[in-house]
Amino acid sequence: MTDIRLIGFSSRAPLTDALAWIDAHTAALPAELVAAAAGRVLAAPVAGPVDWPGVDCAAVDGYAVQAGETEGASEYNPLPLSAHTLIAAGLPMPAGTDAVLPFASAQPRGPALDGLAPIARGAGVDRRGSAMRAGDEAVAAGTLLPQSIALLLALGADPVAVVRQPRVALVVAGPKSGPDLLSPMLHALVARDGAVAEAMPLPATGADLILIAGRTGAGPDDGAPLALADAGGVLDVHGIAVRPGDSAGLGRIDGVPVLLLPGAPHACLAIYDLLAARAVRRLAGVQLAGPYGSIEKTLGRKAVSAVGFTDVIQVRVDAAHATPLGPADAGTLASAVRADGFIIVPETSEGFPAGATVRVHIYRP
Amino acid sequence: MTDIRLIGFSSRAPLTDALAWIDAHTAALPAELVAAAAGRVLAAPVAGPVDWPGVDCAAVDGYAVQAGETEGASEYNPLPLSAHTLIAAGLPMPAGTDAVLPFASAQPRGPALDGLAPIARGAGVDRRGSAMRAGDEAVAAGTLLPQSIALLLALGADPVAVVRQPRVALVVAGPKSGPDLLSPMLHALVARDGAVAEAMPLPATGADLILIAGRTGAGPDDGAPLALADAGGVLDVHGIAVRPGDSAGLGRIDGVPVLLLPGAPHACLAIYDLLAARAVRRLAGVQLAGPYGSIEKTLGRKAVSAVGFTDVIQVRVDAAHATPLGPADAGTLASAVRADGFIIVPETSEGFPAGATVRVHIYRP
Repeated sequence: MTDIRLIGFSSRAPLTDALAWIDAHTAALPAELVAAAAGRVLAAPVAGPVDWPGVDCAAVDGYAVQAGETEGASEYNPLPLSAHTLIAAGLPMPAGTDAVLPFASAQPRGPALDGLAPIARGAGVDRRGSAMRAGDEAVAAGTLLPQSIALLLALGADPVAVVRQPRVALVVAGPKSGPDLLSPMLHALVARDGAVAEAMPLPATGADLILIAGRTGAGPDDGAPLALADAGGVLDVHGIAVRPGDSAGLGRIDGVPVLLLPGAPHACLAIYDLLAARAVRRLAGVQLAGPYGSIEKTLGRKAVSAVGFTDVIQVRVDAAHATPLGPADAGTLASAVRADGFIIVPETSEGFPAGATVRVHIYRP
Repeated sequence: MTDIRLIGFSSRAPLTDALAWIDAHTAALPAELVAAAAGRVLAAPVAGPVDWPGVDCAAVDGYAVQAGETEGASEYNPLPLSAHTLIAAGLPMPAGTDAVLPFASAQPRGPALDGLAPIARGAGVDRRGSAMRAGDEAVAAGTLLPQSIALLLALGADPVAVVRQPRVALVVAGPKSGPDLLSPMLHALVARDGAVAEAMPLPATGADLILIAGRTGAGPDDGAPLALADAGGVLDVHGIAVRPGDSAGLGRIDGVPVLLLPGAPHACLAIYDLLAARAVRRLAGVQLAGPYGSIEKTLGRKAVSAVGFTDVIQVRVDAAHATPLGPADAGTLASAVRADGFIIVPETSEGFPAGATVRVHIYRP
């Protein structure tokens, strides 16, 4: 490791190398059994253990009847029904019945019942196995939706195997002045990505991922690389060709991946979203590509970028356009809050002209 | 109120009337002061109290210098700099300096410093007020992102006024058989929409919204409307022209809005998403239109619907098409889990032909 303090970076790793490093050092954590919990990540698909429903059931409220007996029935020709059982949706069909006659098509007459309209065999009935056959995939692996939780319960798959939530150590350098902005921001970002953040000192034993934020650059007090070395860690990459945040780094302690995030809050956010979010989500088993949704937009004015750097350029979005708030190296926390999202300009590009179609990553959920 | 048990609905309210009822009976709750918390909803915009930064600060690591003294400097013409202070990004610029010279452009010589390249006045400096002027809107009202939390802290806006989280009472009828599927699903849905769900019996005193799930239809045991009346409530609407879930209802207890949700889990989900999510999000101050993002797709095969009902039709989505899983009245919890999302067919429509462009509401975040 080269000490770059008071010297600066002689070279920086391309973003693609940094992403490949993350993919090589992170994979979904082992599964654990938990009572079905929304938002957790199902570790493997769950198949239906039995046909569902297990027997023919009423799909609607009404009278369980034999459809054949309603043939020819009408308001003017009420027909007595020998089989008729008052039934609520969801209950098993009584033996000898094969349709559920709606109340509006039936006329009680003492203990007897007349049909006032014909009904087809199977109408108003959920047939055995109609929702799912035994062995069918019921719930796919991946993040559990509220309705998936309900289906797992219905199938008796409770508890269920979900990916263990990653434990992310936050090692945040005290700010040079004012309050610590990075810790609350990183706690929220880590939680958003399906993991649990915890402030702890190096070597952060027990963590699945370590984020060291602040003091990563070339300034005289930028001791993060030394602190990592003192704790027995190694730095595989220091300096990544991304703006803002080119002082980011990638390393390991005892096989646990370590990311160095720059201390300027807007740069910390950009590097978290580009690199750390990927690491967190891979550990958590989340299969989606990135932390944000994206849309295509037309650039309202040109986006200027530096060749040799992947630039993260914040934009405002309106119905017609995405408009850059400024170059990647002039952002601030204030612009990161004013922005609706960002565009990414690759290393090889000098930027995009006004009118170009760009993909905008949107901050708001 | 008409008891519709064993009779069925003689008429059903159009969805537009139900949505108007919700808008008339829900508004953002009052604000409360909390230590800045991600995901909460900022009640009013926050303006910057002072210029930010409050003084000129170094934007990068390097030496604070007088730019004028570097004029003509080069590797072959090092120029001694009378003003030079080692400085880290974020620190205030010393008096008499106006630029930050990068380490690569500087050469220490004992206690003196030579400049090796010219630098422009203001380069490497964040000018006072450059990120934000006093009185500028710093953070807009609405859901707080992680970076907004950090900016609020930086501005000293901590604690900050956020909309109180709605307390949603869940009154769930015991299932006719098997485990209670509705409670875990509704807890997760309510949490997703920014509120806190709590099981409690009627009259659910202290709740901001009451969801009564199950026993809302025309079956013999469908006692939800009676239970509401017994608790002193009124039912303004019972029966809504939506499939699945036409037994839904809208009412009040002591001015608190009450929604009746059908007991079939897939119908409960559909009505929650169409009606209850709107109520929860309005109470929570969330400004977005609905609980899901949406995309436009081409229908892979025709979507059949009934005139007179707003139909919620579940679809699978691939790169090319959205394909209906079946008609709105044939859905199940299993199809709601298999689906990627749903389309909404208005009351006046018989459906859409294959090849039509439709808006798909996507379940996955």
